[in-house]
Amino acid sequence: MDWNGAEAFVATLSACGVDTCFANPGTSEMHLVAAIDRQPGMRAVLGLFEGVVTGAADGYARMADKPAITLLHTGPGLANGLANLHNARRAASPVINMVGDHASYHLHFNAPLTSDAAGVARPMSDWVRVARSARDLPQAGAEAFAAAMAWPGQVATVIVPADHAWTGDTAPVAPPALAAAPRVPDAAIAHAADALRAADRPVALLLGGRALRDDALAAAGRIVAAIGAQLVCETFAARVQRGAGRPAIAKLPYFAEQAIDWLTPFGTIMTCGTEPPVAFFAYPGKPSELTPPGARLVRLAGQREDAAAALHALADAIGAPAEPAGLQPRAVPPPGDRLTAHAIGAVVAELMPAGAIVSDEGLTAGAALFDATVGAPPHDWLMVTGGAIGQGLPVAVGAAVACPERPVIALQADGSGMYTLQALWTMARERLNVTTVIFNNASYAILNIELGRVGVRNAGPRALSMLSLDHPRLDWCALAAGMGVPAQRVTTVDEFRTALAEALVQPGPALIEAML
Amino acid sequence: MDWNGAEAFVATLSACGVDTCFANPGTSEMHLVAAIDRQPGMRAVLGLFEGVVTGAADGYARMADKPAITLLHTGPGLANGLANLHNARRAASPVINMVGDHASYHLHFNAPLTSDAAGVARPMSDWVRVARSARDLPQAGAEAFAAAMAWPGQVATVIVPADHAWTGDTAPVAPPALAAAPRVPDAAIAHAADALRAADRPVALLLGGRALRDDALAAAGRIVAAIGAQLVCETFAARVQRGAGRPAIAKLPYFAEQAIDWLTPFGTIMTCGTEPPVAFFAYPGKPSELTPPGARLVRLAGQREDAAAALHALADAIGAPAEPAGLQPRAVPPPGDRLTAHAIGAVVAELMPAGAIVSDEGLTAGAALFDATVGAPPHDWLMVTGGAIGQGLPVAVGAAVACPERPVIALQADGSGMYTLQALWTMARERLNVTTVIFNNASYAILNIELGRVGVRNAGPRALSMLSLDHPRLDWCALAAGMGVPAQRVTTVDEFRTALAEALVQPGPALIEAML
Repeated sequence: MDWNGAEAFVATLSACGVDTCFANPGTSEMHLVAAIDRQPGMRAVLGLFEGVVTGAADGYARMADKPAITLLHTGPGLANGLANLHNARRAASPVINMVGDHASYHLHFNAPLTSDAAGVARPMSDWVRVARSARDLPQAGAEAFAAAMAWPGQVATVIVPADHAWTGDTAPVAPPALAAAPRVPDAAIAHAADALRAADRPVALLLGGRALRDDALAAAGRIVAAIGAQLVCETFAARVQRGAGRPAIAKLPYFAEQAIDWLTPFGTIMTCGTEPPVAFFAYPGKPSELTPPGARLVRLAGQREDAAAALHALADAIGAPAEPAGLQPRAVPPPGDRLTAHAIGAVVAELMPAGAIVSDEGLTAGAALFDATVGAPPHDWLMVTGGAIGQGLPVAVGAAVACPERPVIALQADGSGMYTLQALWTMARERLNVTTVIFNNASYAILNIELGRVGVRNAGPRALSMLSLDHPRLDWCALAAGMGVPAQRVTTVDEFRTALAEALVQPGPALIEAML
Repeated sequence: MDWNGAEAFVATLSACGVDTCFANPGTSEMHLVAAIDRQPGMRAVLGLFEGVVTGAADGYARMADKPAITLLHTGPGLANGLANLHNARRAASPVINMVGDHASYHLHFNAPLTSDAAGVARPMSDWVRVARSARDLPQAGAEAFAAAMAWPGQVATVIVPADHAWTGDTAPVAPPALAAAPRVPDAAIAHAADALRAADRPVALLLGGRALRDDALAAAGRIVAAIGAQLVCETFAARVQRGAGRPAIAKLPYFAEQAIDWLTPFGTIMTCGTEPPVAFFAYPGKPSELTPPGARLVRLAGQREDAAAALHALADAIGAPAEPAGLQPRAVPPPGDRLTAHAIGAVVAELMPAGAIVSDEGLTAGAALFDATVGAPPHDWLMVTGGAIGQGLPVAVGAAVACPERPVIALQADGSGMYTLQALWTMARERLNVTTVIFNNASYAILNIELGRVGVRNAGPRALSMLSLDHPRLDWCALAAGMGVPAQRVTTVDEFRTALAEALVQPGPALIEAML
């Protein structure tokens, strides 16, 4: 067989184990489309907007721990996907963007769609490469795979000039060797062990990234067994393996002053898989760093080090028992009388099957949802890692594609859901087992809170109108119907329970619009 | 009064004559929101997605010939608006982006939403400036206004660190002096006049940018009166003033080989307000440049020169009569029996009131629509200038805000409409007089054509599935209802005529879903 550049590129990625492409192609990507078409074992999933495509690749990567390809159309198409690439990068998700561009010889004619695609890519990519020829394309693919898999994951972008895609003949190259996860040095383990031994006040283990996976949490539970540490999850984590039977873990509050208060009892704050906590935004007269005065900060591992190995080594160093302690019992809180974020969380905790995946873009509802579901059956909880809203529904798409046998529940604020609502269409087309719960409060509720927090007083009607989604109120049942997803509206706890129970047993997508 | 940075910035822009802000703010923009709120005469229009905001600013600028402000949230929010900034830049529309960012002292903490906002801005901005202090903010605003108004218009982006917005005291600065439109040198006019006099085969005047406005077209019509030239509009123009009683103008075809064929009869092709025609995309074995062999290319004026003055000077130089010739008569073509793009154009030509504004993102329907409406009452026709789809509905929003007394008709392909469908909500909230016609063919029709044109043979089902919007078919009536826009579906020419006639007399927005 002779391969053109596009075919050799896709075949190389396929040999690396990449088998999924989230796509929103245009004319300059037609040969890449054809190459995907011809590659055995490669699944193509169409999104009707690029933010759906990149967010899905992020959700896929969080669950599969390997990259999907995104297929995007020139600089502007890539631009539409940047916000969720920002989130993917913050999640350290492996993603390979395949961005078509004009034929190399056509660029200098400055046709209307001409743009600096590499310049668009750079702010939200860890690695960018413009393919130089058809023969260079498969090599670029192999390098992109290695870059995306740089532990635990990176966003790698290849710009593919159309002429390099359509010319031949070339051939696939071999998959690259991948480096192992960087180990935390022994000295750092010993330093952390000394800190734990010296601690005379409570210890918080602030966990992030891969430290929130089963194996790492088991080690953290051993440290709990040894010294009674409190496990804390970073405020916006890519993926937490939690629920009944796993080590109990709290979440650091979002608002800076609450986070400082929450951390104040601890004399030692040890970070693993994340960095010391900082405020999400700055506020006039408030600190950016959230470590309380008097607490000792100890670094065990960063996001790009092997946090699980470090936690096991630390547990061994302090002579911790082999079995974790502080396991979360099964528990369902009373939902209360009104349909609130807490009530929704309580009903989710009651009905969620073991092995479910939750995509949480509840924003103002997020803390209540997390707290109400601590005792749910064991599950994975995925959050907005980079603060770029419009992540929740696309991440649910990607998680469902990665794990077709597991139900996905998307807990979605209305305002942020609107950024990438096109994800509902992909759920319908692919018959993904995603139950979307929309929190319809007709408001950018978080901004109404933040307005006062940043010191704005006496906001007038024009200001408040920029924070309101009312007039007209969105009808999410109609929006879902428009994209082929069956939907119903609920206004009470009982209605929600009935609707969720139905949705979880039906195959394919469903949407529940919860009026708050 | 004491002004903080945000207030002084907004007051400076207000003094420059800026009175409209399209907004999608976040926490870091709360003081800018408050400043907009407090600025007398400043209108704030909320979009639920940033592509709506930037596209609306483009549509506004095309009609108002002055900038609106966009209010965007950090790097990822700006990223969501880049695609329509690309189109705005290609349209040479004046736009001022006001992008909030973290407080300057907070950036190095690398909070989740931290990004290189200026780096995100650069690929789609003509001018980028990061404000350095509260006192620098109003100065940055004045400079941004001057940059945006650099004739005929530019995209100017100011990054506003939150602490500079909230600290004071500072004060507005005076509006900048603006430079006049660059004049075409006399020697270039004389050269063009010589070329017209020497022409022994037909002459085509290829017009773009400001050469498509009334005054410039009147001068072009004088040249038609003198030498019988053919007026041709660039394929994707920002704004064409056309219709009955104005100089007749054809549009250069989209597909390269058709454009070359169309131009072949002409011995001289004179460009004014645009550059020599090039293919939108490259295709294997086909030329990028569309000027036929043997034709003489003559440059009268570029996009950034005063095309109207150049055309008048040229008309004078060749002794053209004072009155234009070749005026378009009022004409409505027979629509035919089936509901096609041509039929829709014919009915629009029949019913459109004088002074209407058309936002055309018909894509594969575009040529038929343009041709069927040549004899419509005088109107403005706005196209997708940069090939970044998802422009049509936002541009309609902006045009309606700029010209509240004029009806706006958005002719919108289904696939491209999905990128920024959130624009419908803004139409409903602001009660904009926009009639949206969706061409529902359940397909990226243009890509099905392009697949063959770029040389892909025997495309399989996976490839074709990436070009199809079927399974499920979008229900645009439901989508419109979900955002508060009344909608109806039509399947025949008569149904469409009735629906359009109704929509044009009703105030506020309406949507007609035309099943093709």
